[in-house]
Amino acid sequence: MSKPADLPPMQYRFLGRSGLQVSVISLGGWLTYGGHVDKEGTKACMKAAYDSGVNFFDTAEAYAGGESEIVMGEAIKEFGWKRNDLVISTKIYWGAAFGDNPVNNKGLSRKHIIEGMNQCLERLGLEYVDVVYAHRPDRHTPMEETVRAFNHLIETDKAFYWGTSEWSADEIMSAWRVADRLGLIGPIVEQPNYNMLDRQKVDGEYRHLYREIGLGTTVFSPLKQGILTGKYKDGIPEGSRFSQTQVDFIKGFLKSTGTDKFQGWVDTANNLLPVAERLGVKLSALALAWVIKNENVSSAITGASSVEQVYENVRALSVLEKLTPEVLEEIEGILANKPADIIARF
Amino acid sequence: MSKPADLPPMQYRFLGRSGLQVSVISLGGWLTYGGHVDKEGTKACMKAAYDSGVNFFDTAEAYAGGESEIVMGEAIKEFGWKRNDLVISTKIYWGAAFGDNPVNNKGLSRKHIIEGMNQCLERLGLEYVDVVYAHRPDRHTPMEETVRAFNHLIETDKAFYWGTSEWSADEIMSAWRVADRLGLIGPIVEQPNYNMLDRQKVDGEYRHLYREIGLGTTVFSPLKQGILTGKYKDGIPEGSRFSQTQVDFIKGFLKSTGTDKFQGWVDTANNLLPVAERLGVKLSALALAWVIKNENVSSAITGASSVEQVYENVRALSVLEKLTPEVLEEIEGILANKPADIIARF
Amino acid sequence: MSKPADLPPMQYRFLGRSGLQVSVISLGGWLTYGGHVDKEGTKACMKAAYDSGVNFFDTAEAYAGGESEIVMGEAIKEFGWKRNDLVISTKIYWGAAFGDNPVNNKGLSRKHIIEGMNQCLERLGLEYVDVVYAHRPDRHTPMEETVRAFNHLIETDKAFYWGTSEWSADEIMSAWRVADRLGLIGPIVEQPNYNMLDRQKVDGEYRHLYREIGLGTTVFSPLKQGILTGKYKDGIPEGSRFSQTQVDFIKGFLKSTGTDKFQGWVDTANNLLPVAERLGVKLSALALAWVIKNENVSSAITGASSVEQVYENVRALSVLEKLTPEVLEEIEGILANKPADIIARF
Amino acid sequence: MSKPADLPPMQYRFLGRSGLQVSVISLGGWLTYGGHVDKEGTKACMKAAYDSGVNFFDTAEAYAGGESEIVMGEAIKEFGWKRNDLVISTKIYWGAAFGDNPVNNKGLSRKHIIEGMNQCLERLGLEYVDVVYAHRPDRHTPMEETVRAFNHLIETDKAFYWGTSEWSADEIMSAWRVADRLGLIGPIVEQPNYNMLDRQKVDGEYRHLYREIGLGTTVFSPLKQGILTGKYKDGIPEGSRFSQTQVDFIKGFLKSTGTDKFQGWVDTANNLLPVAERLGVKLSALALAWVIKNENVSSAITGASSVEQVYENVRALSVLEKLTPEVLEEIEGILANKPADIIARF
Repeated sequence: MSKPADLPPMQYRFLGRSGLQVSVISLGGWLTYGGHVDKEGTKACMKAAYDSGVNFFDTAEAYAGGESEIVMGEAIKEFGWKRNDLVISTKIYWGAAFGDNPVNNKGLSRKHIIEGMNQCLERLGLEYVDVVYAHRPDRHTPMEETVRAFNHLIETDKAFYWGTSEWSADEIMSAWRVADRLGLIGPIVEQPNYNMLDRQKVDGEYRHLYREIGLGTTVFSPLKQGILTGKYKDGIPEGSRFSQTQVDFIKGFLKSTGTDKFQGWVDTANNLLPVAERLGVKLSALALAWVIKNENVSSAITGASSVEQVYENVRALSVLEKLTPEVLEEIEGILANKPADIIARF
Repeated sequence: MSKPADLPPMQYRFLGRSGLQVSVISLGGWLTYGGHVDKEGTKACMKAAYDSGVNFFDTAEAYAGGESEIVMGEAIKEFGWKRNDLVISTKIYWGAAFGDNPVNNKGLSRKHIIEGMNQCLERLGLEYVDVVYAHRPDRHTPMEETVRAFNHLIETDKAFYWGTSEWSADEIMSAWRVADRLGLIGPIVEQPNYNMLDRQKVDGEYRHLYREIGLGTTVFSPLKQGILTGKYKDGIPEGSRFSQTQVDFIKGFLKSTGTDKFQGWVDTANNLLPVAERLGVKLSALALAWVIKNENVSSAITGASSVEQVYENVRALSVLEKLTPEVLEEIEGILANKPADIIARF
Repeated sequence: MSKPADLPPMQYRFLGRSGLQVSVISLGGWLTYGGHVDKEGTKACMKAAYDSGVNFFDTAEAYAGGESEIVMGEAIKEFGWKRNDLVISTKIYWGAAFGDNPVNNKGLSRKHIIEGMNQCLERLGLEYVDVVYAHRPDRHTPMEETVRAFNHLIETDKAFYWGTSEWSADEIMSAWRVADRLGLIGPIVEQPNYNMLDRQKVDGEYRHLYREIGLGTTVFSPLKQGILTGKYKDGIPEGSRFSQTQVDFIKGFLKSTGTDKFQGWVDTANNLLPVAERLGVKLSALALAWVIKNENVSSAITGASSVEQVYENVRALSVLEKLTPEVLEEIEGILANKPADIIARF
Repeated sequence: MSKPADLPPMQYRFLGRSGLQVSVISLGGWLTYGGHVDKEGTKACMKAAYDSGVNFFDTAEAYAGGESEIVMGEAIKEFGWKRNDLVISTKIYWGAAFGDNPVNNKGLSRKHIIEGMNQCLERLGLEYVDVVYAHRPDRHTPMEETVRAFNHLIETDKAFYWGTSEWSADEIMSAWRVADRLGLIGPIVEQPNYNMLDRQKVDGEYRHLYREIGLGTTVFSPLKQGILTGKYKDGIPEGSRFSQTQVDFIKGFLKSTGTDKFQGWVDTANNLLPVAERLGVKLSALALAWVIKNENVSSAITGASSVEQVYENVRALSVLEKLTPEVLEEIEGILANKPADIIARF
């Protein structure tokens, strides 16, 4: 399938207060590559993304037990893409496929950060990644050990930048405090969950960090696991419309969030449908564009199981201009979940 | 001999204020591997320990003139254990088998730390160890040179952490003072002698360091060279019950400590026997469990000449729950050697 | 063509406040090597320069899309020159021949500085350069990232020094501020445009930097794209006297500067002709000598399409002694463009 | 020639405030190895020294245009000595055999320090030296550049320590000031001229540095080019008693110092002869022992053209005990050149 003629041009943003530019739409391997999407499907999606101007590909040691890195690395090699055209990121914390005694194969100790990174690079078949994330905070390891170890990866040319994923604002500032004291490099980017339904972090907790440290964000789940595509508008899926994988995923999801909460999200998505229809766009495109419209978002990491889905995601860029102040205000009214300023100024 | 069904599960602790986790029972090569325990015996013990959940193996350049590292390294390679499942430590100070003019093949100069480490890694057949210890303080080499050199090992990916062995509390703090001034990494762990009969360091001198620098300890001789197994309860061994190696060792031991002192230790061990009997455990298990019960002990480094001994040591874990406050108080009464607080507060 | 007997001996200067010595006349690859001057021509020019005592050869990743580095590197290899006899510089910013998605293949991000440098060295066939320049300021990348990345090149033995090209004085000082704060190395040299007609930077803006940070300068266009050779004295070239490349260049030049400004420069050059005639030297030699006479100039980077041109440039050295205070004052009168002191002292 | 039975045991000293130990008598390649002493002679001398307990061998890039390093490196390799038994030093400043344009092949720029060191190691056939000296101060290169470059050699495992040779006391302190400011390593040792006739540096100028920075010294010319062997007692050599090389050397020496000064030195040597005779030792042994008796001397670097000369030098150790306070005072009376305290305390 060749690149459709109607794709809007890709846009790029600096990754926080760094000199690295990432496409505002990026492709991630979570829940897809190395897993239920097979090798050929993965490569096709990556090629479609690359051809659409996506330069940023995200994976993690923990995705599909390391298989995500393997298959994404193979694609990069096979297509012969130039390394400097790509921004590749991976994440360390959870470990990959475990050994006999994985007690140290997890977390943010110096041991796991260095051993984990070496294994990531071997699976990816690369000499370095552009960004390495701490996939979670490690509240057992002293922050200084973690900050030093990520800096060691940078000093030994295994990564150019480091960031965090699902850290609290104060943990990010704690890392910068250590980095400043030791003359080291702090984390430039956080990878949180962000979409119309989950705004506490990006629109709330991290608010001061954009100004203080110039934090960049590469957000995941911009479509809230598909809820913001509208595909659950008639209720929770059962039967043949969905693959077994999806059904299993939703079951687990429901279990952790509760059916009431899920239904509330579906209701909000249903309330957004008329807006999308009026603008003449799909709900998924509206939801993704809304994420990117936020200038504190450096890139929205999208998942895609098919080439068509990749192109659909890229098409969201053409919705950006339709998000006028009036439309955004209307959406705020529907979402009704804007985090309040924590501190009022008198 | 396959793993017995009755072994309790291994427990792990962070190595002081670091992110590295070590099994509370570890296996050391001192006085055994590369020496009177042959290669096959060494491998059998290491495998039994590994199968029991031991992840921490300790050796030193000086153990059996370097042979301990060689044989332990061979075992690691032969069993194909994953490097990230293991915590390997070695120690530098005494040098290994000496050259023609070993004047610089000892101590904590930059020369010996770097040359010694390169030789350790070659003997071990490893690219790095997890922890490298300064096997003694070197009162001739400036502390700054030593601290810089151990940091150099860490920067050049030859070790993840460094520690000390048989340093005084003020020497450890002196190393941290230099490290803090230069923005370097201080020693995270001390390896002292610790058992029911030798408590001055762990329960006394180092007391403030647990809080101040989060010092971890990996203690050796938890059974006081066998005295706490009760095997000397009928007096100093002679004749066929003991191997020649053991007899020689005891002779040397007696010579350095004096027969009176030795007898005092044996008396204490004899006084502890009724407690062990009442709890239904061996004295050795009681003594080892007592060491581990101390939360300032990260790991007790045990020696073992046979697979059975390895399992015996691990079984001490099941004694932990029997060490109630009352039992511990009773033991304190028998030991009567608890170090006093140096500074009284008025 | 063997080295003419009448060439004056080369002179060398320290590159600013560094220990590196460069020939006051150097050879640059801009607009020539890898472009309209073919491989044999390039080698002949480089050999003539080397034989004349030129030790400093300047190129950039962007010159002829990387071809300049390739052909100059080939010459160095072919002639078997000793690496320590040479001072080789290149520049990073613009990228070389681009990939499919060159968004990060430009600028002064850590990614482009490291990736770009690795590519430069591969094209040059060298393990390191002596000086790497930031070919322009990058106002999007934080200064700290840029300063750290150039220091990383120095720490990893890919360059001995770093400098800037066409940075403002305050940007240079900003780099030093970051370097001082982090204990890193600041840029020792700036590569600006400098000739009788363009003096704002070297004789004005940078004035305080010579004293404050000991800035060195390696200046380009000492003959103002040929205007100071007097070759345009009869007007803008048309027809057969000039190659098509030159005609195209001049056309572009005129377009960007405007015909009036160009004519003003030609007038000044014409006014200088009598001085040159009286001294018995060519105008080009006078102009080049005037540049070198400035002690704040470490080296004048000359371009040459032919061996004869190389020798002509070197001959300018013999004009230095004719630039007496009286002659220099007479020239100031003609140029009438000496930058004023910005700050008057009361 | 096997090691004589009467050789006294070697003594070792710490090299200033470092953890490195050097034999108090060491062997240097200056004016001998790679020059008028051939390869076999060099190896024989080195072996005799090694067998006598000498562990410290000194050379320089400039000795015999690099040939000294080559031949000394060959000996080390041929004898199969263990690297950790040896302390090898070389010096950088003068460059070795020059290229076509050696302007940067000299001095203490970052370029020459790194390029020069790489060439030294290649000639020596070693991966690192123990000590690298700055063979002279470089008053054109900023001290910070020099201090950073020597630290770079240490960080990249090419040397363990660095020192200076013929620097002034204030230049050494200036290097430490830079090192302290940047958290780097300062020079631990100075290599000056020192013997009974040349005491200004070691007994005068450096006096405060032993206490302030713990400066070590490895002194050269302990016998003042043979004057303190008494071989010129009958006047300046002519004719067959001396080799042509020696005659040429003396002629050059006389030219630079003047015949009067030379005669003064010979007179002093003649006045010392009765002391040597009374003690029953050769004048050369007395002179060498007098140098070593000074505790601020870490090692006396001796030259030797023959195995016998090596042993003669080592025998000086047995004179140490004869240098009683009374004898030393008598010698002071003859020398009459003790540097005065510069600052009197009121």
